[in-house]
Amino acid sequence: MFKRLVIPAAILAISQYAFADEGQWQPYQLTQLKAELKKVGITIPAEKLADLSKHPMSAIVSTGGCSASFVSPEGLIVTNHHCAYDAIQRNSSAKKNYIADGFLAKTRAEELAAGPSARVYITDKVENVTKEVTAGLSDKMSGRERREMIQSKIKKIVADCEQDKAYRCSVPSFHRGLEYYRIRQMMIRDVRLVYAPADMIGNYGGDIDNFEWPRHTGDFAFLRAYVGKDGRPADPSPENVPYKSKDFLVVSAEGLKNGDPILLAGYPGRTSRYKLPSEIRFARDTDYPLRAAEMLADIATIEAATKGNADDEVRYASVVKGINNRLKKTQGLIDGFARKDIAAIKDAQDAQFRTWLIGSSKNPTEAKALLAKLDAVIAEDMALSQEELAYAVATNSDLLSSARSLYRLAIEKEKPNAQREGGYQERDLAFIKGRLTRLEQSFLAKVDRARLTAGLARYAKLAVHPAGLDALLPSVEAAAGLYEKTQLTDTAKRLAWMDKDRAAFTQSDDAFIQLAVKLHDIGMSLENRRKEVDGNLDFIIPQYMQAVIDWKKSQGKPVYPDANSTLRVTFGNVGAYSPRDGITKGPFTTVEGIVEKHTGKDPFIAPAPLLQAIKEKRYGVFKDKVLGTVPVDFLSSADTTGGNSGSAVMNKRGELIGLNFDSTYESITKDWYFDPAITKAIHVDIRYMLWIMIEVDRADNVLKEMTIKYPK
Amino acid sequence: MFKRLVIPAAILAISQYAFADEGQWQPYQLTQLKAELKKVGITIPAEKLADLSKHPMSAIVSTGGCSASFVSPEGLIVTNHHCAYDAIQRNSSAKKNYIADGFLAKTRAEELAAGPSARVYITDKVENVTKEVTAGLSDKMSGRERREMIQSKIKKIVADCEQDKAYRCSVPSFHRGLEYYRIRQMMIRDVRLVYAPADMIGNYGGDIDNFEWPRHTGDFAFLRAYVGKDGRPADPSPENVPYKSKDFLVVSAEGLKNGDPILLAGYPGRTSRYKLPSEIRFARDTDYPLRAAEMLADIATIEAATKGNADDEVRYASVVKGINNRLKKTQGLIDGFARKDIAAIKDAQDAQFRTWLIGSSKNPTEAKALLAKLDAVIAEDMALSQEELAYAVATNSDLLSSARSLYRLAIEKEKPNAQREGGYQERDLAFIKGRLTRLEQSFLAKVDRARLTAGLARYAKLAVHPAGLDALLPSVEAAAGLYEKTQLTDTAKRLAWMDKDRAAFTQSDDAFIQLAVKLHDIGMSLENRRKEVDGNLDFIIPQYMQAVIDWKKSQGKPVYPDANSTLRVTFGNVGAYSPRDGITKGPFTTVEGIVEKHTGKDPFIAPAPLLQAIKEKRYGVFKDKVLGTVPVDFLSSADTTGGNSGSAVMNKRGELIGLNFDSTYESITKDWYFDPAITKAIHVDIRYMLWIMIEVDRADNVLKEMTIKYPK
Repeated sequence: MFKRLVIPAAILAISQYAFADEGQWQPYQLTQLKAELKKVGITIPAEKLADLSKHPMSAIVSTGGCSASFVSPEGLIVTNHHCAYDAIQRNSSAKKNYIADGFLAKTRAEELAAGPSARVYITDKVENVTKEVTAGLSDKMSGRERREMIQSKIKKIVADCEQDKAYRCSVPSFHRGLEYYRIRQMMIRDVRLVYAPADMIGNYGGDIDNFEWPRHTGDFAFLRAYVGKDGRPADPSPENVPYKSKDFLVVSAEGLKNGDPILLAGYPGRTSRYKLPSEIRFARDTDYPLRAAEMLADIATIEAATKGNADDEVRYASVVKGINNRLKKTQGLIDGFARKDIAAIKDAQDAQFRTWLIGSSKNPTEAKALLAKLDAVIAEDMALSQEELAYAVATNSDLLSSARSLYRLAIEKEKPNAQREGGYQERDLAFIKGRLTRLEQSFLAKVDRARLTAGLARYAKLAVHPAGLDALLPSVEAAAGLYEKTQLTDTAKRLAWMDKDRAAFTQSDDAFIQLAVKLHDIGMSLENRRKEVDGNLDFIIPQYMQAVIDWKKSQGKPVYPDANSTLRVTFGNVGAYSPRDGITKGPFTTVEGIVEKHTGKDPFIAPAPLLQAIKEKRYGVFKDKVLGTVPVDFLSSADTTGGNSGSAVMNKRGELIGLNFDSTYESITKDWYFDPAITKAIHVDIRYMLWIMIEVDRADNVLKEMTIKYPK
Repeated sequence: MFKRLVIPAAILAISQYAFADEGQWQPYQLTQLKAELKKVGITIPAEKLADLSKHPMSAIVSTGGCSASFVSPEGLIVTNHHCAYDAIQRNSSAKKNYIADGFLAKTRAEELAAGPSARVYITDKVENVTKEVTAGLSDKMSGRERREMIQSKIKKIVADCEQDKAYRCSVPSFHRGLEYYRIRQMMIRDVRLVYAPADMIGNYGGDIDNFEWPRHTGDFAFLRAYVGKDGRPADPSPENVPYKSKDFLVVSAEGLKNGDPILLAGYPGRTSRYKLPSEIRFARDTDYPLRAAEMLADIATIEAATKGNADDEVRYASVVKGINNRLKKTQGLIDGFARKDIAAIKDAQDAQFRTWLIGSSKNPTEAKALLAKLDAVIAEDMALSQEELAYAVATNSDLLSSARSLYRLAIEKEKPNAQREGGYQERDLAFIKGRLTRLEQSFLAKVDRARLTAGLARYAKLAVHPAGLDALLPSVEAAAGLYEKTQLTDTAKRLAWMDKDRAAFTQSDDAFIQLAVKLHDIGMSLENRRKEVDGNLDFIIPQYMQAVIDWKKSQGKPVYPDANSTLRVTFGNVGAYSPRDGITKGPFTTVEGIVEKHTGKDPFIAPAPLLQAIKEKRYGVFKDKVLGTVPVDFLSSADTTGGNSGSAVMNKRGELIGLNFDSTYESITKDWYFDPAITKAIHVDIRYMLWIMIEVDRADNVLKEMTIKYPK
């Protein structure tokens, strides 16, 4: 938006792409974008796309962290392999290694439980509740008062909405508090694994290829939603039946080519497109470098503590993978900021906006005051975040986190449910329990000790410390000794603390419970200061965003809100990009590239049947006319971010042509600034998926269930 | 050639380029390639290209190691910046740093001497002297006898030819002894530097970008040939006048685009296109890995010995640069062999050839015997080369090399000039003296000591040692002590040994002279065994090559000989390539890429006036219509190798459109096998050169001298 079309001439000049595909649009906004949709080549009417109850949007679902879509009337869902990874892993054993070998249920009865935390969310109602949430807010309130009043109202709206246990509700803010929408989602809690290709198809290239192009990952898997016989969500049970999905996407294997229009629908998690130049500089110069150094140090600590013991390494593999993924993203942001001076671009835009605001305002003094206040609150926000990071570095222990969370729960439980802090209400207890239980899969006392003590040592060297914290922290030596004096390492004993009261904590001689009690006040103090700052942001940012929207409106342009894990639509075109002068990347990779990368060493071990099919050129109907072979992945200019994993990629008619699963490394800064010259999302081509299902995995039953348009 | 069109179907399938541009053709062969020239799009008649006395071939010259061409009737020559580097360096000082700042002579008087070793060779006659050279050779001869008889005949032909001191003559063998040609070249020995851009244009990207694409190097410079007033070559003198070049290339700035035909003429050094599969496997598995390890170790030794002392580092900079360049090439060969199983491709071709040979031979038993003999001699060749390498490792000292060369000279001088070993005749003395003198610029006793002792230590671990050598070599400790007992470190004293006789050497108490004397016999033994093997190769390879040529002839295809530093013509098209699935490289880079790479740190420090011209988009007439800016470098499918640096790249009409200066990393294996799918040569675009001359260096006088066709 205010980056959207005020791109300085200098930026446009070096861009090879005239049309900017920026925008994670709320579906209702699409009716304001008819000209843009037409320009891209989308033929499905905007009104249809805007209606969540109509095809194709009613086929788009969420799995919690990922996006997905129905592809049959029997609740069959397609998403990314990495989104179904937990379901595959929990059903795997040394004997039946579904990660390595893939999994295919040949009948409904063979479908496997995706696990107690697996969910499918179907958005069915989106209502603007801004008035309800903001009524009674006053500019006399302190930030914390405002924050708490907003949160209390949201909790009430959510509680009312969740009276029907079939639904999960939320009230996310849009434009950071300018608008609030109540989102009601049917929450299906019996989810089963139907089919997943082998890891070396679904995760070919692994961490090495993560965020990279050329890509050859077949990142797809199939799940199925199950409900009670009454058609309503139910706890997992053999009695449950497949959910009769009202809508599903038709699959088109007719192919696509460079320049073709695409539509993408899903649940992008979080973007920061409306940040101020000062915030970009803070992230670039201070926050990200510090976080990257912390992550590197933490990984090194874990690796040193697990080295040489394969079991220990496996236990922390997913933790390390998670940190590595965040690190690569953070490093990509740092590299991206170094490559392009986004702060300078934002400076120009910000100056333009401020001039417009002061110039067009009836009360220029008030406008200036607003901007001054904005800058002041943002400065407080940045300063506080440094203290919060320092606190996190000093308390880098899963055991301590568990203890702190348990003590907080005991305190919150003293209040009536409605008044408890979000995250500690009755509705949250199952999640807390799940988290405390799952810890046993990725925890070792010796590793946790190493992380805590190393974190304390690093904390000592940080420039900013929260006031009073140093005196409460154990020394590195003392911290190492805590692990002899705790029983929290035992899952049953850990869980037992969920039912204990505050006194049990304060009187406990468990070393970690004691430390959690000791740190409680300073943690609360940080939290309350966070509420004060956030409450002030809740007050100032909506005014700022309204001004930005007015500014754009004066130019006839709509504004999309930052991503907030709600359903969005983006559109663009299949296309290549030039990461550097003299090089072009994309838009397609082909199966021959799989052979090219195959080294026989993880993560480049293509399964033998796949290699054989390529060798024999068994391309079938999936042979692309231009490429002369089967495409694997492709690039488009769609505007995506984390959470868009598994998003349906559709052609101009709303037919499924692929799944989104990643972005290129050069695109990582798009969370801050969408650069149309280099931003590309990575999708797996539906033709590769179908080809794998036919030629490698013989998933005939799954194919039969879908409606597939083959090339003529 | 026998790789040329028998490319297995599997190779063609993955190639995106239907036409193979392989072939470093002797100019006379072009008349057999009319169809190919037409297919590529060359309009200049083949007969004209085949005639060295006609335009454009008569404008093509050599500078010894590089290729070049006349671009004015006044002896103005254009070649690569890196080919003129010595000339620039020797004229530079801290005060007048022509390397950093570039150099432009505004008048003839300002032109600077390129140095006593600078040469311009103009090929004026090429005669087939095969009969003369091979007359009297008998299959009864030992290899060494054959070798010595051939060498003696060649020496005589050369001596006769060089009666006129204006000429330098040589009798290179083609197809390893199947044919011999006498090449007569006018040797101009007064060469001056006219114009060179700054190093950060001419060598932008330095070693980091060497062999790489994208490339942004403006690798060009201008020299001028001077002759005596009589028009004949003369020693450098202020009395000399510019050489009246009979021919010169017209420059075309009209531009070129993807797919355009190009012609390239120059002096490629050495290729190994007709090697057997066994030779490829030996290079891949044994020889190259060992050489790469040796080079790495030698660089590490030099770096450790010079570290921390800037003067010492500078003294060895060019030595390290040279080893690094060879290492990168060797590593590229190793990588290339790993990427593509060239040995397997050659296996198929070789089997096909052998079957044909035995099948079509009147005497199959004889044909089989020929092949068996071939394999046996090649095996001996490979085995001996391991001993030679071991000997080189054990004697890795510039001082020892000098002493050995001096002692050998004393011995050779005992014979009449005509009978001396090549390299030790009267005509070679100036070169020997030059080499012994130049040593002072890149020598330090402490570094030489480190290299010799480290080499001896590595030698001890090698699997193959020449028989008897171990007993003659000093221990590592003793070798370190030699430097206290030698005066060869003094240039004058080193040179004085050129005039001493054998007795002076055998009676000397100089430690390095003594060691050279001690090692002489074993060195001669290796050399004589080399002659024996080479003489056997001289006998068998011509028979093999004749069979290969017959085989190709039976398919209607001409065969080009391996490169041997003689004038060759190659042709192809401007084009991109795909180094990996999903990525395309080239065919052009642009001036904007210079800005992109500019870090302000060596080797990416673009000069401020250059950056300014780009910033202001002062593209002038050099703005490419497709690119929208000024091109810098481009890729073509021309078949080149080392020695082709500076080669004229011409359009279909024979007009100069660029200079060849490098190949892509993926192309390095082309010396063994020309893979049309990935082999690309890198050229600097004439438009960039002219643009630099106008916008950055204001070289108006040089521009004025050339005939330039600007775009209409």
